[in-house]
Amino acid sequence: MLYLIGLGLGDAKDITVKGLEVVRRCSRVYLEAYTSILTVGKEVLEEFYGRKLILADREEVEQEADNILKDADISDVAFLVVGDPFGATTHSDLILRATKLGISYRVIHNASIMNAVGCCGLQLYKFGETVSIVFWTDTWRPESFFDKVKKNRENGMHTLCLLDIKVKEQSLENLIKGRKIYEPPRYMSVNQAAQQLLEIVQNQRIRGEEPVTEKTLCVGLARVGAEDQKVAAGTLQQMCAVDLGGPLHSLIITGDSMHPLEMEMLSLFSIPENSSESC
Amino acid sequence: MLYLIGLGLGDAKDITVKGLEVVRRCSRVYLEAYTSILTVGKEVLEEFYGRKLILADREEVEQEADNILKDADISDVAFLVVGDPFGATTHSDLILRATKLGISYRVIHNASIMNAVGCCGLQLYKFGETVSIVFWTDTWRPESFFDKVKKNRENGMHTLCLLDIKVKEQSLENLIKGRKIYEPPRYMSVNQAAQQLLEIVQNQRIRGEEPVTEKTLCVGLARVGAEDQKVAAGTLQQMCAVDLGGPLHSLIITGDSMHPLEMEMLSLFSIPENSSESC
Repeated sequence: MLYLIGLGLGDAKDITVKGLEVVRRCSRVYLEAYTSILTVGKEVLEEFYGRKLILADREEVEQEADNILKDADISDVAFLVVGDPFGATTHSDLILRATKLGISYRVIHNASIMNAVGCCGLQLYKFGETVSIVFWTDTWRPESFFDKVKKNRENGMHTLCLLDIKVKEQSLENLIKGRKIYEPPRYMSVNQAAQQLLEIVQNQRIRGEEPVTEKTLCVGLARVGAEDQKVAAGTLQQMCAVDLGGPLHSLIITGDSMHPLEMEMLSLFSIPENSSESC
Repeated sequence: MLYLIGLGLGDAKDITVKGLEVVRRCSRVYLEAYTSILTVGKEVLEEFYGRKLILADREEVEQEADNILKDADISDVAFLVVGDPFGATTHSDLILRATKLGISYRVIHNASIMNAVGCCGLQLYKFGETVSIVFWTDTWRPESFFDKVKKNRENGMHTLCLLDIKVKEQSLENLIKGRKIYEPPRYMSVNQAAQQLLEIVQNQRIRGEEPVTEKTLCVGLARVGAEDQKVAAGTLQQMCAVDLGGPLHSLIITGDSMHPLEMEMLSLFSIPENSSESC
């Protein structure tokens, strides 16, 4: 049996009791290490679970899935995912591959950013399509995701923006020379995301459109589910300067129409007026 | 401290390790009993947690929140919610009330239908606004939620439909006479939801609109996260007759544009051609 087990969002103890029991009895336990991170590292998890974990990066899951699935028809293999297993596309891929090999699978769900984001008080049912914001480079500055933000706002829906994670990236030089030397991991902050968004806002304005402005109400979230989680509600402009600490960060662009209860919840997290710095 | 703790979706062991530790040390533990159910009852939870649970129905949470929050400034009180605490509006209400009384709170997240629904293979980020489908009566047959389904489909997004739960309902007679006698709980099935939807489809057609038809691809889900979870993918017509067993059920109306990986995942759950019965 292949078990896909969500680890939740905070630390080692956010696994479910059921998940922990399965981890302790599986013959091999993989830890997916590229779509998200916990506030603790592999070693802390290994100590708490009492098991050695095999790190599985994107390459391995995509190219060597057969290694992960080896003997899973006659023994139990666990594949651990931060959050819930259905956050990323590649996990569907693993399930399809298992099914083709005649291997049964089970999913042990957990919280993911897709539902835990409700902690800011915005109603989950009022979220529209989720978008991803990637790190811009000098030559690659994609704006196409912004159409979805526009559509969501036109329909009064909030937009959850998942922020870029760069893990095991190679520099162009190392890539060309085939050297497996990797850059340090990078996690996009709410500040960085807001700065990129403000550039898009300005580009939209040139075209005569203003679906989002500097004053649009946004919510920045950091380390959701962890003890030191931070939530800040304020304008897009304020999101450029708010200090939310270490990764992972997420950003919400609110829809236009807000329920009074949503406003009251957001007020618990509002950034003081005088802390609004410019980007 | 007030702890809002998600129980996940299946049985007693779907609580997180962190959640269980908190439950075991709190001075009072409430169980919210009106927005969702697990596959096991209060007694099974009590035995596994090793704690007595106080049932809190909607009336109590809304009208007697102060009882729940009593002494939570000097001791620890837990409020358990099936799924994640941010599924229902009333929990925001409890948090706001606690904050006004100067009581700190913490949330221990878990899976909810809002993210676990990804188990069918549809990509979570492609879901639009969530809708609720209520039991129709002879005189009350609301269709307004359907506008949201239309908007979602126009934008290529899937719609998660949460199906009605009637717990602690009084008959009109008992209500008028002020007798606290309650009807047995009722949970809307995928069949019932699909039948109501088909009526709306026919009404739309009279107006010359066909955003959804009998042939629109839907997904029925039952007891998501439990050992005996069932998922079935087929047309809206097929959803009228598919047998998914006991509650809770949910229904997805897919968006028009599907990723090949989504189609491949759905094919794992497709209803055989010859089992298509009419409503």
